[in-house]
Amino acid sequence: MTLIGEDLIQAAEAAAHAAGTVIRPLFRSALLVEAKGDASPVTRADKEAEEAIRALIAARFPGHGVIGEEHGADRPDAEWVWVVDPIDGTRAFVTGRPLFGSLIALLHRGRPVLGIIDQPVTGERWLGVAGQPTRFRAPLGGTAACRPCAAVEEAELSCTSPDMFLPPDRPGFERLRAAARRVTWGGDCYSYGLLAIGLVDIVVDATMKIWDWAALVPVVEGAGGRVTGWRGEVLTAEADGRVLAVGDPALLPEAVALLTDR
Amino acid sequence: MTLIGEDLIQAAEAAAHAAGTVIRPLFRSALLVEAKGDASPVTRADKEAEEAIRALIAARFPGHGVIGEEHGADRPDAEWVWVVDPIDGTRAFVTGRPLFGSLIALLHRGRPVLGIIDQPVTGERWLGVAGQPTRFRAPLGGTAACRPCAAVEEAELSCTSPDMFLPPDRPGFERLRAAARRVTWGGDCYSYGLLAIGLVDIVVDATMKIWDWAALVPVVEGAGGRVTGWRGEVLTAEADGRVLAVGDPALLPEAVALLTDR
Repeated sequence: MTLIGEDLIQAAEAAAHAAGTVIRPLFRSALLVEAKGDASPVTRADKEAEEAIRALIAARFPGHGVIGEEHGADRPDAEWVWVVDPIDGTRAFVTGRPLFGSLIALLHRGRPVLGIIDQPVTGERWLGVAGQPTRFRAPLGGTAACRPCAAVEEAELSCTSPDMFLPPDRPGFERLRAAARRVTWGGDCYSYGLLAIGLVDIVVDATMKIWDWAALVPVVEGAGGRVTGWRGEVLTAEADGRVLAVGDPALLPEAVALLTDR
Repeated sequence: MTLIGEDLIQAAEAAAHAAGTVIRPLFRSALLVEAKGDASPVTRADKEAEEAIRALIAARFPGHGVIGEEHGADRPDAEWVWVVDPIDGTRAFVTGRPLFGSLIALLHRGRPVLGIIDQPVTGERWLGVAGQPTRFRAPLGGTAACRPCAAVEEAELSCTSPDMFLPPDRPGFERLRAAARRVTWGGDCYSYGLLAIGLVDIVVDATMKIWDWAALVPVVEGAGGRVTGWRGEVLTAEADGRVLAVGDPALLPEAVALLTDR
């Protein structure tokens, strides 16, 4: 087990704070109303927040790498690599839903060992550290812990959008959806946060990049759940973008069988 | 124009407050985690909140009627009738998303003249009164005013769920969806609130009961938008459950044409 020091946790929280400082003034602002669904003001905020995070990490840990959606990869082969996405859930952001999040992850030799999901408008923050119970700052309520759910037919399934799945992914998704108790739509990273507080049992996504999923792994696993690929495999930098999260690890074999038709 | 007195507005706000007092302790509670997506604890909260609202209205306005989802209709033919749904968006509620709402409406001779959308967890409240600008209590930001949007191809469309449309409604919905700039999923009454703060341009729904739509009409129209049936008709107690809201009234003819293939 890699020991994650307080200096790393404090840097991750400082990075989330820096992102929120850039993002909050734009949420529901006149600029977004006028842009009418155009993502460009959000892209600007995303870039600016990522720059602030990169400056912060460079000052504290000059030997660490950083990977971000907007500014690419610096030293991606370093022992410690930060992976950041200041605004995950652009559609939620531009339509005024407080369900987007800032994602901050730290990889050690390619494996996520620290993750933050931060909701800068509600003030919610999930913090996951490998080997430790997930912590949840919960101004709207809730407690960090996945709930038991032994069978897909009892499971609450959550997905960002029915339009997210590419044609090859649809049969697997439709099998899982038909088997699950119910499906709710919308949420991006926030759905994984809801899984980590025991209100959602399965989340499936496709076309996810490493900055979309790296922070989710320590958050969900520290709450008792699992995050894998659709075949149940450990996610790595080479992952195919298909992500499966379960709150109860007992769900994993059945969910994988439905997704892959094995 | 019917004059809506302060006593009616105060009663509506008291009703929203009463609903929130019942609902807030249940949100993300252990009871919901254990119920695992079962709506029954929510149904109990919904009933209890509706009873509190009915007691409040009976005490202040004994001659008024009340229609609610859980306890049916008392004096539905009275000159003034309250229409309430303490938890609109049950799926959002049970999965921990703060996008459900308490809906309180007042009809005068069958037409909605006052409406509240209350989000009791975030503290957001939209208050619409016929002939007055919509007021918005906005702890997360935003300003009550629909935005201009002259064409469906520029419009941000919002829908609760792709599973909500019955087979006869699907072709119309698919035409509108294909023509719109983008679609985001999830939200129930909250989507109409986002339309009333200028971040969504069109919302379409089907299978709506009067308690689902009555409160939305004064909120959206007081912000400059329109709420109608899919044929552009005024909604009445006999409406067919298909609801269309546009932030810019200029969108209405094109949206109606797409939904009805005229």
